[in-house]
Amino acid sequence: MTAENIPAGYSYDEQLPPSPVDEDRLSELLTNVMWSDADAPALRRAGEILSPRVSDILDVWYDFIGSTPHLVSVFRGADGEPDAEYLDRVRGRFEQWVIDVCTREFDSQWLAYQEEIALRHHTTKKNTTDGVDSPSGHVPMKDMFALIVPVTLTIRSFLEEGAEADDDVEAMHQAWFKAVTVTLVLWSRPYAGDLW
Amino acid sequence: MTAENIPAGYSYDEQLPPSPVDEDRLSELLTNVMWSDADAPALRRAGEILSPRVSDILDVWYDFIGSTPHLVSVFRGADGEPDAEYLDRVRGRFEQWVIDVCTREFDSQWLAYQEEIALRHHTTKKNTTDGVDSPSGHVPMKDMFALIVPVTLTIRSFLEEGAEADDDVEAMHQAWFKAVTVTLVLWSRPYAGDLW
Repeated sequence: MTAENIPAGYSYDEQLPPSPVDEDRLSELLTNVMWSDADAPALRRAGEILSPRVSDILDVWYDFIGSTPHLVSVFRGADGEPDAEYLDRVRGRFEQWVIDVCTREFDSQWLAYQEEIALRHHTTKKNTTDGVDSPSGHVPMKDMFALIVPVTLTIRSFLEEGAEADDDVEAMHQAWFKAVTVTLVLWSRPYAGDLW
Repeated sequence: MTAENIPAGYSYDEQLPPSPVDEDRLSELLTNVMWSDADAPALRRAGEILSPRVSDILDVWYDFIGSTPHLVSVFRGADGEPDAEYLDRVRGRFEQWVIDVCTREFDSQWLAYQEEIALRHHTTKKNTTDGVDSPSGHVPMKDMFALIVPVTLTIRSFLEEGAEADDDVEAMHQAWFKAVTVTLVLWSRPYAGDLW
């Protein structure tokens, strides 16, 4: 990443407060999703295939969100209509997230940024990163979670299109599903408090 | 289902309080998971394949939970050790859940029972159905959600083993993934309150 193409509001590499989720809890989450030694290289390889395609991937996801009124409503501006600049800024980070899921180490810095993303969905920090005066004060947890299905299923064709003869598409897809599940679970932390 | 084989504590067909989630919200959730007209018959067919295998399926899931200390810990009895009777009673309902996911209509009664299951994971009703004096007062939301991965991935081989020549395993598996996601999202409702 060069300075020119850092997405607006992206702060992964900045000094972040540590996540309240420690690496022992992360290890338990990885156990829950049956994470195995084979998943790490499969996810890295998925990243090589998906990284050049992030704009196409976001086209698919934004078409889906944009055509679904209760989903796009979290992007409303002060006038109650979808805010194009807000959508655009989030899109840049969403693209970067695809790359980060596949390429970043699952370490304390990764946990810290997942917590930052969590807070940006929750009432704690929604709208602040992008300076939006939105009537939507949080992303409903149910919608955030349910998007695990489109985010998992739609990635398959991108993996198939980019796979070479010795790639295992099923292994890459399962590693993606597992890693996305862990990130979504981490993003749900502020919603559930002590019961998380 | 005959009177003799109703699982302990199973109350789907009893008079239940209506869910706070109405059918409009359910419709939105089904949109989120890209539910389509083709999913309903695929899920019904999956039910025909999975229903005779629920004991084998639960063997797989209980092996996984039983061998994972932080997961089995929610089944502790008063002595701090896993409570065999508690595990056994939940297992009966878990088996029935597999059948219900595939065969029940997604209507207000279905919503009411998903809410009942939600409350049985949450502090509201954990342990009461089975009369357990457990030091575990709730199922952590993160663990409940992350189990979407084993519950989705492990079902594939059962579908493959039971499929006939004209069955579409991929379609059945996707319908299962979508339906399971909706149920887990509904079970998370009490954890997030107004932010759900």
